[in-house]
Amino acid sequence: MNSAELYKKWYKEEHASPDLLDKFIYGIPELHREKMKNADFVSSAGCNATAVILALYPLYKEGIVEKTIVEVKVGSSEAGNTVSDSSHHPIRTNCVRSFMPTHHRHTAEIIQELSLNGEAEIHFSATAIDLVRGILATSHVFLKENIDEKKIWQIYRDAYKDEPFIRIVKEQDGLYRYPEPKILFGTNYCDIGFEKDPDSNRLVVISAIDNLMKGASGQAVQAFNIMHGFDEKTSLEFPGLHPI
Amino acid sequence: MNSAELYKKWYKEEHASPDLLDKFIYGIPELHREKMKNADFVSSAGCNATAVILALYPLYKEGIVEKTIVEVKVGSSEAGNTVSDSSHHPIRTNCVRSFMPTHHRHTAEIIQELSLNGEAEIHFSATAIDLVRGILATSHVFLKENIDEKKIWQIYRDAYKDEPFIRIVKEQDGLYRYPEPKILFGTNYCDIGFEKDPDSNRLVVISAIDNLMKGASGQAVQAFNIMHGFDEKTSLEFPGLHPI
Amino acid sequence: MNSAELYKKWYKEEHASPDLLDKFIYGIPELHREKMKNADFVSSAGCNATAVILALYPLYKEGIVEKTIVEVKVGSSEAGNTVSDSSHHPIRTNCVRSFMPTHHRHTAEIIQELSLNGEAEIHFSATAIDLVRGILATSHVFLKENIDEKKIWQIYRDAYKDEPFIRIVKEQDGLYRYPEPKILFGTNYCDIGFEKDPDSNRLVVISAIDNLMKGASGQAVQAFNIMHGFDEKTSLEFPGLHPI
Amino acid sequence: MNSAELYKKWYKEEHASPDLLDKFIYGIPELHREKMKNADFVSSAGCNATAVILALYPLYKEGIVEKTIVEVKVGSSEAGNTVSDSSHHPIRTNCVRSFMPTHHRHTAEIIQELSLNGEAEIHFSATAIDLVRGILATSHVFLKENIDEKKIWQIYRDAYKDEPFIRIVKEQDGLYRYPEPKILFGTNYCDIGFEKDPDSNRLVVISAIDNLMKGASGQAVQAFNIMHGFDEKTSLEFPGLHPI
Repeated sequence: MNSAELYKKWYKEEHASPDLLDKFIYGIPELHREKMKNADFVSSAGCNATAVILALYPLYKEGIVEKTIVEVKVGSSEAGNTVSDSSHHPIRTNCVRSFMPTHHRHTAEIIQELSLNGEAEIHFSATAIDLVRGILATSHVFLKENIDEKKIWQIYRDAYKDEPFIRIVKEQDGLYRYPEPKILFGTNYCDIGFEKDPDSNRLVVISAIDNLMKGASGQAVQAFNIMHGFDEKTSLEFPGLHPI
Repeated sequence: MNSAELYKKWYKEEHASPDLLDKFIYGIPELHREKMKNADFVSSAGCNATAVILALYPLYKEGIVEKTIVEVKVGSSEAGNTVSDSSHHPIRTNCVRSFMPTHHRHTAEIIQELSLNGEAEIHFSATAIDLVRGILATSHVFLKENIDEKKIWQIYRDAYKDEPFIRIVKEQDGLYRYPEPKILFGTNYCDIGFEKDPDSNRLVVISAIDNLMKGASGQAVQAFNIMHGFDEKTSLEFPGLHPI
Repeated sequence: MNSAELYKKWYKEEHASPDLLDKFIYGIPELHREKMKNADFVSSAGCNATAVILALYPLYKEGIVEKTIVEVKVGSSEAGNTVSDSSHHPIRTNCVRSFMPTHHRHTAEIIQELSLNGEAEIHFSATAIDLVRGILATSHVFLKENIDEKKIWQIYRDAYKDEPFIRIVKEQDGLYRYPEPKILFGTNYCDIGFEKDPDSNRLVVISAIDNLMKGASGQAVQAFNIMHGFDEKTSLEFPGLHPI
Repeated sequence: MNSAELYKKWYKEEHASPDLLDKFIYGIPELHREKMKNADFVSSAGCNATAVILALYPLYKEGIVEKTIVEVKVGSSEAGNTVSDSSHHPIRTNCVRSFMPTHHRHTAEIIQELSLNGEAEIHFSATAIDLVRGILATSHVFLKENIDEKKIWQIYRDAYKDEPFIRIVKEQDGLYRYPEPKILFGTNYCDIGFEKDPDSNRLVVISAIDNLMKGASGQAVQAFNIMHGFDEKTSLEFPGLHPI
């Protein structure tokens, strides 16, 4: 986060090194690639924040959003490798568990990155499901005006057409009509799809990542490649496994 | 559904027996118990619809809701026992799959039952997860006015204090602070919890059921018991298994 | 176990209370019901041991077995509710893990109970799989002489025909032709099936239990009922859930 | 299989092309690499057969085995991508299901390849578990004479020391002391470990593969590389994902 004040609000403690805040670039290359090229420090973006920010960035950049309600579904690896009662296999298996229905810390990063045309109104909650890797973010975006799917397509294509790790996924039929983390395990992709509600201004945006890749080490390697002038895709071209 | 016209809107076909519509009571006892006592026909409520309607009924009855965005997470048994490509174990395992992000049929039932003070504005989507039984519904309720949690407690308690199958679940600590379908497998309970966002008028309501029990046959047996004057809990007292 | 000497061999430490050994009845009612009726102390039988002993007891009683190789597949609840690195959900999920391929402690109980006609030769190993509840034991029994399936049927029927919690499962078709722990979650049943290899003296005996019920507390309640003269089935009549 | 006669015994039908039998090389490179170099046709080895043959080949080559009882644990992808009642997610989840406890077809391949010093006595059974990819084979090998683990090590090292896809896994501590399919998803490795029973001539050999890789297409690519003079590891160097 860029602000020591907001850090305190969301993390309930003082920021340890406020003097370093302006030396760090927020670690999502699709938003900050140019700055990363000359940066000495890049922070790692939160996994949930990455899935949501990439899904919504083109819309917020256009200034067409009124507010967004986001529900992310997350696997157990998101909590790290420290054992706890809640990660005990007999307990964690079959679970569909709300944690921090309100005031989740990643909300702060999301608001920071999406406040491109005034402060973004973001309502975020997360649910732990029986999965090891993977995040699916379902964003209910209320648009200021009614916009059709063709226009939405164009906005996403303009924003991401040259991005090596963003794919727009929207099929008429088949099993994978919308993004799914299952086919992204081990990859650095963020898949994004959407569906417009014909009866209202609501646009549902669905985004998927592997939280340990595009949500953590994969994105860090991508940033590292940019900082050092390497091909951005170096060591990140694993296409995934199926079925799994 | 009570209306042949709305049926056609949501199901994209003519209702087969519009003349029977006013003979059937909608099958959620907590809303229609008195009518069921003398009814000859009770319809089975949809499983997703049951989880959502029971979560929101007390709030809509009070007339305090502006609009609600609902995200349900559902297991594979919801799709029935007919085999399909999408239910094939290598495909269905590990999946986090959006289906009908907009225009899900159960929306119609939810709107019908919650339009107690004007037409309810409900935005609904469902995500299939790697689970056999169980539904968790996360409802983001935007209240007309800011109301504190104590008042919300009172509203739920007043509405459900005598209900044998509704439990309000809201703990300060422990593993099961909010409702979870995992501990409801095989039971007829609907567990409901909530958390108020301190920064906005948003109230997150979390409800859980076993889709094959309170979402299907269990609720049908409950209605049957009421119709015939039996103890409403007859054959429905299984308390659940843990861990599972 | 009945012997302090064998206890030391298998558990690698001295028995804490050798003087109590002859006061305890080994806790499987199907083998020791009469003694339990007047017993003050009944020990809890091991979960793996229960699944194997019940599967093999009728054959060893007949004195027709040369030796047996047993492979049990077990869920994570068998390890108890103490958290450990090996029970961490990201690690334990998808695992198929051998533990103690030789010298598993439960072997001692199995040998003790099956040495009805000379010392039983038992080779035992266990594999942890991605399951919370349940044990499936596959016993490869090498018979002294070739015996046909009809005779095997008769032996099992004679041994278990009056047992309330033993079911012989052996179907020509359908999904549940052999025992499976999946349909026993929460029940006190031990299901037993078998298939004779037409080309050798090998008989494969398959047995399933819920390790937390017939393998632990369920069997303890059954023994308690016997000790106190209650109906043996009291509080143990849950028939199971399906699907799950 | 090399024999039309044995084919009929195990598959219960006539072989469709007995004239082609001697034109095909059995598709496990570790056993038939030299012949593959000049072969026009290589058959694909069965997935279970591959896991078992690679585990036992060094021992049978030495002529030190009396007989072997094998229990394989397999995932759902082994049954292919055709939907069936038994692959329906609500049914297949949580299952621990015996299929063909005796007379499994893969037994024929195993006997064929291991009959290097007289006909191999192999007793095979398979159990389906809740897993998509992966096979763990637990082989209970009864040795003709008591041989210590050091000698067993030497036999495996001599047989496989130059093999790019065979790894001997045997650790004193840690979570992965024995082979596990979980860490092999997507890789072409066959991991092999063992433990000698100090009280008998039994040696437990544990082997793991990804059934869709070393058990199917991966091994086919490996054979293809050999037939065409390519580096044997071409396109097969994916090291796996963890956790998953």
